[in-house]
Amino acid sequence: MQLGMIGLGRMGSNMVRRLLRNGHRCTVFDHSTQAVGALVEEGATGASSPAELAAKLERPRAIWLMVPAAVVDQAIAELLPHLADGDTLIDGGNSYYVDDLRRAKELAAKNIGYVDVGTSGGIWGLERGYCMMIGGPLEAVQRLDPIFRTLAPGAGSIERTPGREAGRGTAEDGYLRCGENGAGHFVKMVHNGIEYGMMAAYAEGMGILKAANIGKARHDIDAETTPLRDPGHYQYDFDLPDIAEVWRRGSVIASWLLDLTATALVEDPALSGFSGRVSDSGEGRWTLKAAIDEAVPAPVLTAALFERFSSRGEADFQNKLLSAMRFQFGGHVEKSGGH
Amino acid sequence: MQLGMIGLGRMGSNMVRRLLRNGHRCTVFDHSTQAVGALVEEGATGASSPAELAAKLERPRAIWLMVPAAVVDQAIAELLPHLADGDTLIDGGNSYYVDDLRRAKELAAKNIGYVDVGTSGGIWGLERGYCMMIGGPLEAVQRLDPIFRTLAPGAGSIERTPGREAGRGTAEDGYLRCGENGAGHFVKMVHNGIEYGMMAAYAEGMGILKAANIGKARHDIDAETTPLRDPGHYQYDFDLPDIAEVWRRGSVIASWLLDLTATALVEDPALSGFSGRVSDSGEGRWTLKAAIDEAVPAPVLTAALFERFSSRGEADFQNKLLSAMRFQFGGHVEKSGGH
Amino acid sequence: MQLGMIGLGRMGSNMVRRLLRNGHRCTVFDHSTQAVGALVEEGATGASSPAELAAKLERPRAIWLMVPAAVVDQAIAELLPHLADGDTLIDGGNSYYVDDLRRAKELAAKNIGYVDVGTSGGIWGLERGYCMMIGGPLEAVQRLDPIFRTLAPGAGSIERTPGREAGRGTAEDGYLRCGENGAGHFVKMVHNGIEYGMMAAYAEGMGILKAANIGKARHDIDAETTPLRDPGHYQYDFDLPDIAEVWRRGSVIASWLLDLTATALVEDPALSGFSGRVSDSGEGRWTLKAAIDEAVPAPVLTAALFERFSSRGEADFQNKLLSAMRFQFGGHVEKSGGH
Amino acid sequence: MQLGMIGLGRMGSNMVRRLLRNGHRCTVFDHSTQAVGALVEEGATGASSPAELAAKLERPRAIWLMVPAAVVDQAIAELLPHLADGDTLIDGGNSYYVDDLRRAKELAAKNIGYVDVGTSGGIWGLERGYCMMIGGPLEAVQRLDPIFRTLAPGAGSIERTPGREAGRGTAEDGYLRCGENGAGHFVKMVHNGIEYGMMAAYAEGMGILKAANIGKARHDIDAETTPLRDPGHYQYDFDLPDIAEVWRRGSVIASWLLDLTATALVEDPALSGFSGRVSDSGEGRWTLKAAIDEAVPAPVLTAALFERFSSRGEADFQNKLLSAMRFQFGGHVEKSGGH
Repeated sequence: MQLGMIGLGRMGSNMVRRLLRNGHRCTVFDHSTQAVGALVEEGATGASSPAELAAKLERPRAIWLMVPAAVVDQAIAELLPHLADGDTLIDGGNSYYVDDLRRAKELAAKNIGYVDVGTSGGIWGLERGYCMMIGGPLEAVQRLDPIFRTLAPGAGSIERTPGREAGRGTAEDGYLRCGENGAGHFVKMVHNGIEYGMMAAYAEGMGILKAANIGKARHDIDAETTPLRDPGHYQYDFDLPDIAEVWRRGSVIASWLLDLTATALVEDPALSGFSGRVSDSGEGRWTLKAAIDEAVPAPVLTAALFERFSSRGEADFQNKLLSAMRFQFGGHVEKSGGH
Repeated sequence: MQLGMIGLGRMGSNMVRRLLRNGHRCTVFDHSTQAVGALVEEGATGASSPAELAAKLERPRAIWLMVPAAVVDQAIAELLPHLADGDTLIDGGNSYYVDDLRRAKELAAKNIGYVDVGTSGGIWGLERGYCMMIGGPLEAVQRLDPIFRTLAPGAGSIERTPGREAGRGTAEDGYLRCGENGAGHFVKMVHNGIEYGMMAAYAEGMGILKAANIGKARHDIDAETTPLRDPGHYQYDFDLPDIAEVWRRGSVIASWLLDLTATALVEDPALSGFSGRVSDSGEGRWTLKAAIDEAVPAPVLTAALFERFSSRGEADFQNKLLSAMRFQFGGHVEKSGGH
Repeated sequence: MQLGMIGLGRMGSNMVRRLLRNGHRCTVFDHSTQAVGALVEEGATGASSPAELAAKLERPRAIWLMVPAAVVDQAIAELLPHLADGDTLIDGGNSYYVDDLRRAKELAAKNIGYVDVGTSGGIWGLERGYCMMIGGPLEAVQRLDPIFRTLAPGAGSIERTPGREAGRGTAEDGYLRCGENGAGHFVKMVHNGIEYGMMAAYAEGMGILKAANIGKARHDIDAETTPLRDPGHYQYDFDLPDIAEVWRRGSVIASWLLDLTATALVEDPALSGFSGRVSDSGEGRWTLKAAIDEAVPAPVLTAALFERFSSRGEADFQNKLLSAMRFQFGGHVEKSGGH
Repeated sequence: MQLGMIGLGRMGSNMVRRLLRNGHRCTVFDHSTQAVGALVEEGATGASSPAELAAKLERPRAIWLMVPAAVVDQAIAELLPHLADGDTLIDGGNSYYVDDLRRAKELAAKNIGYVDVGTSGGIWGLERGYCMMIGGPLEAVQRLDPIFRTLAPGAGSIERTPGREAGRGTAEDGYLRCGENGAGHFVKMVHNGIEYGMMAAYAEGMGILKAANIGKARHDIDAETTPLRDPGHYQYDFDLPDIAEVWRRGSVIASWLLDLTATALVEDPALSGFSGRVSDSGEGRWTLKAAIDEAVPAPVLTAALFERFSSRGEADFQNKLLSAMRFQFGGHVEKSGGH
C-alpha cells in the first residue's frame, strides 16, 4: 500500500527501504534533502515539504512520523493543515505514551486517526525486520496491517513457543496491537527499560571479569584504603571476547544483546574508542515513573538508569559532599587514585 | 572416551545420556539406586559405591562430580582413597571458585588432576548441549577435550560473530578453557550473576505491564496513601503472553530467557502455580563478593539478588522497624492493604 | 495574629495548640465536630463550615490548610467563594510542589495569595516546634512571620553551625523561605526522600545485626540452598535496644531518627506489634521523579522507596515470574521456607 | 589506670590526650617520633619501640592498638615476644571482625587476652568522647572499664530514651560490651555501613536540590537526549547552606551528620575543594558480605557503597561497554556532555 514517511534518520530510511523492497509505495520527506534524494534513487517519491508530501498521497492518507520525541508535536502541527478527514498519522518514534493519549484525543476531534508504534530493531531492522508494539483504534491498526506485516520480521526460523496455539494473532510475526492509544509506546517504553537492565547486567558482569586480576596490583596501606584480603583469589586475566562467545552457545544468558557484545569485544577488547558517557533517550526514565505511579518495585531497571546518569558525571556534586562530610568528621583527605 | 560420573540429578543424568548417545562409555554412581538403574538401562555401567566406580574405570581415570556445592568436599574425600597417580577429578557443579583453588592445590600434592567446569544449560542441555566454562591445567583440560566437545552444543546454526576469525579456539563450539583452576567456576559464577540481573529485568518489566491497569482501581484518600494523579494513564489490560511473544521477534531484548518467559506465560498467564519465594543457589552472592573485593560497582546484579532475599521474607524485621519509626515520629498506624 | 485553620488531624490540631499557647487567635474547622470542640475548649474559635470560618476572620484573612494532599484542591474550591482580595491561603500539608505552581497561578488571578509550607516534626512538633520550609511571594511570607516564628522551634539549645554568621536569616530559628511558590514543598519533598533513605539505612543495619546469629541455625543441603560457609562467623545474639542506645552517644550516626529507633526497640525489641507493611505518602515518589527529570542519580533514595513497595507485596507477580523462569530452565521447584 | 597505646594518628593521639586529662597514665609508641614527642610533652611516657613500650608497662599490661586494619597482624607480631601471661591487647581500629575471631583464639592459646573495640567519633572524640562497641571476654572488658568510661562521652545532656530503665548497663554512657570477641567490630562494621547509607541519603537529596534549576538550562533536541517536559518545574536556585541549617532545627532528619553537612556547606557552598573521589575503608564492604551471608537484603547500604566505587572511576569499563552496545544495535555515537 501507499505510505508517507517523515523523518529519514537511521530508522526511518531503512523502514522505507524495507517497504520499497516489498512492493509498497512510499512518499518521503526530511529536512535533509540528501536523505530524501537517497531514497528517491531507491524508488521512493520525494517531497520537499510536509504539504507536498500530503499532496502527493492518495486519501485516506497514512503518514508515518519517525522523528525525535521532542519534535513530534511540531511535525504534527506542520502537517495538520494539509490533512483531511479519515487520514491516519502513525508515530513510530520513541514518544512518551502520555503524549499519545493527548494527541489521539486532539486528532480524533478532527477525524484524523492516530496510531502509536514502538519500534525495536535498531540499525539491524532493514535486514531482520522490526519488532513493533502498536497502540490505537482497532480499525486503524487493521487498515495498516500490510505495512506492519512487511516491516515485521515474520515468524522466520524462530521456533514456536511450546504450548502456544498456532495462528493466535500476529505476535508470532513480530508485531502486535497491544491495546488502545498509548499502549504501543507503553510497551515499547517498558521494553527499553528492560533493555537498560539487561545491558547493565552484562556490563557489570564483564566489569567483574575484567577486574579479576586485581590481586596482581599493589595496594596502598593506609586508613583510606580497604586491604584486599586474598590477592590470590584475583589472579585471572580473562579473555572477554572468548567468554562472550562461549556464552552465546547454549548458556542461559544467550541473547541478541550478547551477540552484539561479542561483536563489540572482537572489534576492540579494550573498548578504547568509547569514553563511557552513556546516553539515555527517555524510555528508561518513563518506565520508572510508571513503576513509581503503580507502586511496583523496579530496583534493577532503576539502577541501570542511574548508572547511565553517573557515567555522565551527574553525581559529581553529591560525591563532593560525601568527601566533605568525611573530612568534617574524620579529617579524611581525598586520595587521588587507586582502588 | 571413558568417564565416571558421580551425582545423577537433573544435570548429571542428562550429561551421561548425551555422552552415551555419542559413543562415550560412562560408569555412574549416585546414592539413589533408581537413578543408577535408569542410566544402566540406557547403556551406562553402574556402580554401588565410589570405590566400585573407581575400580571399574581404567587408569588414568577421569571422574566427573555433579553434586551440590555443599557436598563436593565430602564426595572427594570418599573417592580419594580409591584414586591413583595421574587420575583427574572434574567438578562440574556450582562450586565456589575459591574452593577450587584449595582443592586443586590439595589434589596436586597427591598427583591428582583437578578441573573445574561451570556448566550452563539446565534441563535443556541434553538436547541443546551444555555451555561449559573450564578452569585447570592446560594438559588435563586437553585430555578431556572429547568429553567437552560432545557435551557442548557445537557451533550449530548460530552465526559466527562478525569480525571473529574462524578456528580461534573452542569458544564457538560452546566450551572454553578460561584459565587456571578456579577460572571455570569464576566465569560461571559471573554468568549466573548476569542471569539474575537479566531475569529481574524481565520480571520487573512484566510487573510494570501487569499493573498498568491500576487506574481502574479505587484508591483510599488519607495521609498514608499516595494519590494516583492521573488514573487515565493506567487503563491498560495487557496480554503478557502476547507481549513476551512479540518481543521474541526482532526486538533488542530477544533472548533464551525471554523464550522461557513466553513459555511460562502461555502455560499460565497468572503464574498461579508459584508463590513467589525465589531461591538463590550461591553464585549471585559470590559474584557480589567478588565485585566488592574488586571495588567494581554492580548495583543491578545486587538489586536482583536482594529481590530474591526479600521474596522469601528476609526483610520482615527491617520493614517492621520502618513501621515502628513511622509510628514514633508521626503516629502513623500500619494499613492492612492497598497501594 | 489571627489565623484560620482547616484540617484538625494530628498535625493541624497541635499547630493550633502551639499558636494558642503563644497568644495567637485561631479559628478552626474540620469535618469532625469533635476535633473542633476539643480546640474550642482550649481557646480556639470554632466554625461549622469553611464559609463560617471565612466569615469569622478579619480581612485580610490568613487561612492554613492542613489536609491530605488528595483533598487540597477540593478544600480550596469550597473556601474560594468566601474569600476576598488580599486574603492568603497557606497549604501546610504534604502537597506535590507541582500543584503549588498551578494553584498559586490560579489564586493570583483572583488576587489571593498562596504560600506553600512543608512542615516537619510530626507528633512531636507541639512540644519541640515545627521545622518549616516555605515557598511563596516574599511579602506574603513576611506578613505571616509571627505565625512561623511561633510554630518553629527557635534556636533553642542547638549550637550554631561553626562559621555561620549570626543573624543570617531565619534558618537558625527553624523556618526558611526557600524561594518562590513550590519551593517549600520541593524542599520538604526532598527532606522526606532523605528521611526514607536514613530510615532504611538504620533498618537494614538492624536487620543485619538481628540475623547475626544465623550460624546457629541448621541449613538444608540441596541445590536450591546456598551453604553458609562459616557458621562460626554468625554466632552473635545482639541486644538491639542497647546497641541503638550506645549509638546515640557520641557516634557518627547519632540522630533524632535513631533516638526514636531506640525508643521503639525499648518498647518491644521484637517489634511484634508491627506487620511490616510500610506505607509511603508521596514525597519519596516525587523526589525520585525530580531526580529522574534532573538526571541526578539517587539509588539510595530509590532503594528505600522500593523496599516499602515490596513490604506491601507489590513485587509478588515479578517474584512468581522469577520462580517460573527458574522452573523453565532448571526444573527448580520453589522451596517453602528457610534461608 | 595504666595503658599502652600503639599508633598515634588522628584517633590514637586524641584518645591518649583524653585519658591523660582524666588522670590515666599512658605509654605511647608510633613510628613517627614526632607524634610520640607531642604526647610526651602533654604527659605521656614515650617509647621508641614496641619492646620498650612493653618494658615500661606494669603487668598485667593493657595495650591498645590504633593502627590501620592492614597492619594489625604485624603490630601484634612485633609486640608478642615482649608480652606475658595475663596481658591484654585491645584492637581499637577498624579491623574486620573475622580477624578478631582468629586473633582472639591465637592469643588465648598464649594466655593473652584480646578485646576488640569499634570506636566512633572521629576527630571530635577528644572533646565529645568516643562511642565504643566492645567485644571480648567479660572479665577482660570489665578490667578495662576505667579506660572505656573515660574515653566514652558519658550520659551528658542527651535525654534518656523514654521507657528505658535507669542504670541498665553502660550503653547510656556511650560504651557497650556487645558480646564475645568480634562483636565489637561487627557492630562497628554495621555502624559504618549505616553511616554510608545516611551520608548518601543526604548527598543525593542535596544533589537533587542543587539541580532544581535545570529548567533554566538549554537542552539539545536529538534522539540521544531526553527532553525535559516541564522546564517550569525546575526553576529553583536553592541556598543549600540555609536548607541544611533549617533541617537541623526540629526536622525529622536532624542528625550529627547533618550538622557536619551544614558546616561544610557554610565553608564553601560549591564544595570546590573536593574532587568527588570518595574513599571507603572496608566496613561498608564487610557489612555487605555479612548481609549476603545472612541473606538479609541491604539495597540502601549497597547503593551507598557502589556510589563510592563509581565516584572513583571504577565503573569506566562497564560504561564503555554500554556505549559499545548502543553503538552496535542503534548506531548511537557517544555525546560529549549535557544532561
